[in-house]
Amino acid sequence: MGKIYSTKYRVPFYHSDAKREMTIPAILNVALQISGEQSTELGRSEDWLRDNYHLAWIVTEYEITLNRLPKFLEYIFIETEAVSYNKFFCYRDFRFLDEDKNLLLKIHSTWVLMDPDTRKANRVDDEIVAPYESEKVSKLERGHKFAKLGQPEKRSYSVRYSDIDMNQHVNNSRYYDWAVDPLGFDFLSQHQPKQIYIKYNHEVRAGEEISSAYLLTEKKSCHAINDGDAQIEIEWEKII
Amino acid sequence: MGKIYSTKYRVPFYHSDAKREMTIPAILNVALQISGEQSTELGRSEDWLRDNYHLAWIVTEYEITLNRLPKFLEYIFIETEAVSYNKFFCYRDFRFLDEDKNLLLKIHSTWVLMDPDTRKANRVDDEIVAPYESEKVSKLERGHKFAKLGQPEKRSYSVRYSDIDMNQHVNNSRYYDWAVDPLGFDFLSQHQPKQIYIKYNHEVRAGEEISSAYLLTEKKSCHAINDGDAQIEIEWEKII
Repeated sequence: MGKIYSTKYRVPFYHSDAKREMTIPAILNVALQISGEQSTELGRSEDWLRDNYHLAWIVTEYEITLNRLPKFLEYIFIETEAVSYNKFFCYRDFRFLDEDKNLLLKIHSTWVLMDPDTRKANRVDDEIVAPYESEKVSKLERGHKFAKLGQPEKRSYSVRYSDIDMNQHVNNSRYYDWAVDPLGFDFLSQHQPKQIYIKYNHEVRAGEEISSAYLLTEKKSCHAINDGDAQIEIEWEKII
Repeated sequence: MGKIYSTKYRVPFYHSDAKREMTIPAILNVALQISGEQSTELGRSEDWLRDNYHLAWIVTEYEITLNRLPKFLEYIFIETEAVSYNKFFCYRDFRFLDEDKNLLLKIHSTWVLMDPDTRKANRVDDEIVAPYESEKVSKLERGHKFAKLGQPEKRSYSVRYSDIDMNQHVNNSRYYDWAVDPLGFDFLSQHQPKQIYIKYNHEVRAGEEISSAYLLTEKKSCHAINDGDAQIEIEWEKII
């Protein structure tokens, strides 16, 4: 069990979609912000990590399980906990709870430490993660197995200046937008995600053209950004 | 002088750009959120306005004057004040201040009350605006005069599902992204806006294709979205 960091949050209109519910990209962005706050509180800020180890945290996988999306103006609690780590990966959970502490959604995430210049992954040094009180484990988790897309539908997008974040590459949350946008307004208005798997394999940079490929069956959509730079699978529930 | 509503805010990474500064769309979104908070505090929430008058507030113009952009993780104060109103328009100011209360930027905005079904502007009823203690004036402000574009450069964008907000049309802050994106990563990395004028003439909806036209001179860029659905002018300062 790692240390738990918790914060109260109210869903603003700019994190809400046409259905007055919090968007998945906003959920991922707020989660990342909160894990950064915990790290800073524990003396492990981004600056500390860069200055002392010349490293930065990068998320490689998300697994999101949804009971219900937070609503516009709803007060929620967001908890995060760096649960465990091994030689190469750290595993962090996020729980979004309603005001009565019922679970709205859970995110299980996988992180690596990367050299910001070489963009190569590094081993996890015990001293870096000690303050989180995560369990050290020898086993590497098996990530989700993504289905092959076969003959997908494709659509292209341009990386905009506003898609680039402080790390000089595309903000992690943008891939979800590119993935689901080709499903169309009607589908997205009438369906809610219940389970989402995201895997980041290669970073995308400014000025690139993005291909967003997808295969949609009745209850599931499989997506590949740039033939596999990112892979996303979503299980859907029809709500209208 | 209207009542002033003030809040403290810390710039999260998801509101920061590649230069580690708060983005203009984030500034507009946070400002809108805060004016909504003031309205709710004064008993004039969106729901109240819809239930009692079948109306909604719409911003038609922004004039933004920038000394310096808020920085990533900086604590700032944001103040808003519904300064004055006449038969058709309400004028609201926002001030973003640093921790020592120095002015970072100021936004002057123009609002109308719109029927959400007919999308037509309504007269401003005294009862609606009374709690803000804004000054009633007879004069209509002359908005900024936008230059004609002549032979502009053009680029097209698709409206994505994620561009649509709770009002079922494109989020106001997106137009700025469409306008400036064609200027390119190099230009945007090397320049800072000092003065921005935005005028919304017609709403854009889901599924539309957007044309973003611009004319760039040394220190100024003039933009038209969809031949005038929105007009934007920006005065730039070279920073690198």
